[in-house]
Amino acid sequence: MKFIILLLSVFFILNTSAQTDADVLKTIYTTSLTNGNSYQWLDHLSNQIGGRLSGSLNAEKAVEYTKEELEKLGIDKVWLQPVMVPKWVRGAPEFAFIESGFGSTTNVNICALGGSIATPFGGIKANVVEVKSMEELEALGKENIEGKIVFFNRPMQADLIQTFDAYGGCVNQRYSGALEASTYGAVGVIVRSMNLRQDDFPHTGSMTYGDLPLSKRIPSAAISTNDANTLSGMLALDKNVKFYFSQTSKQLNDVQSYNVIGQITGSEFPNEYILVGGHLDSWDLGDGAHDDGAGVVQSMEVLRLLKESGVKPKRSIRVVLFMNEENGLRGATKYADVAKQKGENHIFSLESDSGGFTPRGFSFDCSDANFNQVLTWQELFQPYLIHYFEKGGSGADVGPLKTDTNVLAGLRPDSQRYFDYHHAATDTFDAVNKRELELGAASMASLVYLFDKYGLVK
Amino acid sequence: MKFIILLLSVFFILNTSAQTDADVLKTIYTTSLTNGNSYQWLDHLSNQIGGRLSGSLNAEKAVEYTKEELEKLGIDKVWLQPVMVPKWVRGAPEFAFIESGFGSTTNVNICALGGSIATPFGGIKANVVEVKSMEELEALGKENIEGKIVFFNRPMQADLIQTFDAYGGCVNQRYSGALEASTYGAVGVIVRSMNLRQDDFPHTGSMTYGDLPLSKRIPSAAISTNDANTLSGMLALDKNVKFYFSQTSKQLNDVQSYNVIGQITGSEFPNEYILVGGHLDSWDLGDGAHDDGAGVVQSMEVLRLLKESGVKPKRSIRVVLFMNEENGLRGATKYADVAKQKGENHIFSLESDSGGFTPRGFSFDCSDANFNQVLTWQELFQPYLIHYFEKGGSGADVGPLKTDTNVLAGLRPDSQRYFDYHHAATDTFDAVNKRELELGAASMASLVYLFDKYGLVK
Repeated sequence: MKFIILLLSVFFILNTSAQTDADVLKTIYTTSLTNGNSYQWLDHLSNQIGGRLSGSLNAEKAVEYTKEELEKLGIDKVWLQPVMVPKWVRGAPEFAFIESGFGSTTNVNICALGGSIATPFGGIKANVVEVKSMEELEALGKENIEGKIVFFNRPMQADLIQTFDAYGGCVNQRYSGALEASTYGAVGVIVRSMNLRQDDFPHTGSMTYGDLPLSKRIPSAAISTNDANTLSGMLALDKNVKFYFSQTSKQLNDVQSYNVIGQITGSEFPNEYILVGGHLDSWDLGDGAHDDGAGVVQSMEVLRLLKESGVKPKRSIRVVLFMNEENGLRGATKYADVAKQKGENHIFSLESDSGGFTPRGFSFDCSDANFNQVLTWQELFQPYLIHYFEKGGSGADVGPLKTDTNVLAGLRPDSQRYFDYHHAATDTFDAVNKRELELGAASMASLVYLFDKYGLVK
Repeated sequence: MKFIILLLSVFFILNTSAQTDADVLKTIYTTSLTNGNSYQWLDHLSNQIGGRLSGSLNAEKAVEYTKEELEKLGIDKVWLQPVMVPKWVRGAPEFAFIESGFGSTTNVNICALGGSIATPFGGIKANVVEVKSMEELEALGKENIEGKIVFFNRPMQADLIQTFDAYGGCVNQRYSGALEASTYGAVGVIVRSMNLRQDDFPHTGSMTYGDLPLSKRIPSAAISTNDANTLSGMLALDKNVKFYFSQTSKQLNDVQSYNVIGQITGSEFPNEYILVGGHLDSWDLGDGAHDDGAGVVQSMEVLRLLKESGVKPKRSIRVVLFMNEENGLRGATKYADVAKQKGENHIFSLESDSGGFTPRGFSFDCSDANFNQVLTWQELFQPYLIHYFEKGGSGADVGPLKTDTNVLAGLRPDSQRYFDYHHAATDTFDAVNKRELELGAASMASLVYLFDKYGLVK
């Protein structure tokens, strides 16, 4: 018996040493590119379901669909984690125009920002104050703003190489513009879309009223970059230009929804969890193909690729499809709360929420020791043109899982085109390239494989 | 006087040391992204001119347009270099169908390959032999091929990370398929499009008849990947399926055309030339926006960016817009011949002919010593996410300039989407992202700046 065990041990050692990490990565990438399922899943999510705003029927369809698809993978466990989510509805299509001093009007493309109240019935028409920053708003003060519409028009900075940096430098206009402008008596807010392209599509996104009482809230909408330029140009010629907009958006009561979770239970360390995830909800204007359909199907694909590639995880690998990243982060908060209650040790959590473009690498939120371990793996990724391994942020949904000892990471795809689609009607399936999506899934599966095999540095 | 020279020298040294290479690169990238002209030029080439097949009216319009635009830059010299080019014309739209044993027909999408003869008047209908390789063709032999249409159906290999490798592994079917098949008595050749996507677009491209007499030549066309799968599936069910195709393409006499050349003359070493270029001709199905409108406008932009960034080149910087890369390489051959006659010392030549996608780096054809010098510059490119610096090929148009001592290089953009557009009707302006194009131009200008400043390693 001992002899047999010895023989088996030798066999396994030989077998393991024969299959190098480089071999496993090659199998994972080849499987993703030649026998992947991420693109078909994304096709269904985008074209058969569509935009998946939290609390919508489509969001619930996406919960059902992804749960069923995970069950088909034959992994160890699939379940729904209940979470109450906000339900905001856009209502009728928004309508807006610029009215010149002579009374002639120019229709422009706007969309209500997520969470915004409606305009009064019949819309609002008012003079416009254009500003580029909160400081400018403050300097103008109540006397110049009261009764007017504030137009936030600071463009994303084109010379920043990482477009997320340009987004970070502008998004306060969208998120806090209405809250700030309302303190100076503005009656509405129009925000230049967070878009590096010049085009006609307004880009929605979350905004806040903070603790403002209902009576003090003012409606807020995004305007397309082309129309923002038109409005700015007309204002430069005539300060008395008026802006009209009408929207019927409103916040309803919270409704029941779910995170979708699947798990392969670890063979050696089942109580150490490795999480891979994206968010199942999206905005309502497009299909949410890049944001974050791509992250959802890539995360599902990670488990499938490990299985197809013959990897038997030592640790428990979980895919989590978070609900309500866009306007509340309720799913992520709930997941982290439950994990904490149960004392689940999440050693590594990887998020994909930056679009389905060619993967360039990963960003890591962890100790130097763990980051140095990652750097020893960097060479393994070179054949796949994955070069970017940097310390930095991870992602909104895995953020709440942060501890002093674990590792959080975010997939970093090429970001140049991302804001052409982000939160706009252009975020559709045809904007996602199959190979780029599949390379991302394979990169994620490869990193998960390595963290599963080697664990954390103590 | 000596004192003044000393003072001036000190001033220049201080001035030079104050402006680091990193500063210059930052200026170049910022200029390209915030004040670039490449995208507008590409808009004109794609949408106001369109496909620019050698010998066509559009190709001549492109010669005139780019010459005029280079002249507007106020560089030292702009001229046309005459070169005779082949003139192949597609003729009437091609038409093809598959005919089942029951006589029912299925229309399919084909296009004549560049250089192919027409079908006989009224088209060809014949049985089909499907093969995946030249070896399979040889094994089948004359008895199985004579009187039939040979269908080359080897797909591009999806698991190769660099799509150009997948192209290299398949393109002999397109280039030599008709030549090989004709020796076994085939009456026509249909080739699976060089495309990694499943879609309905046929992709043209060059082919050869070698020294085959006119009477032995057979017509050759590309079929879309979707239709290639349909044809293959129908053949699997019924070997007697017939294929019909009709095309009226023909080769006319050579016509006069031109390379377009612009130059900034070097201040210290005017007889050392640094060349940057792309090809002005394209195929006729799309607008040639990626292939190689992108390379053309990026190359023009290199000279503009150097000027705008205040770089005064020590060596002579030439932009060359080569004519006839696609079906003859006559422009490149002519340029290299003239350069040799004149004894022009081309120390560094950089080509952009891999699409206008996010630049990933460069491939170098040079000595180890010169490559090692390049590697010392690699760090300068990291802020711009340019990581790929490898020895390898350069490009078809700069290839003839190769010597034992000089450096040739090719820009290497992300290649995942390239073959979605290559030589097909899909290669249009909207498939090019402005920022990606501009990042490529800036990367090229930066490398040119460094080679100009440091020259070659002896």
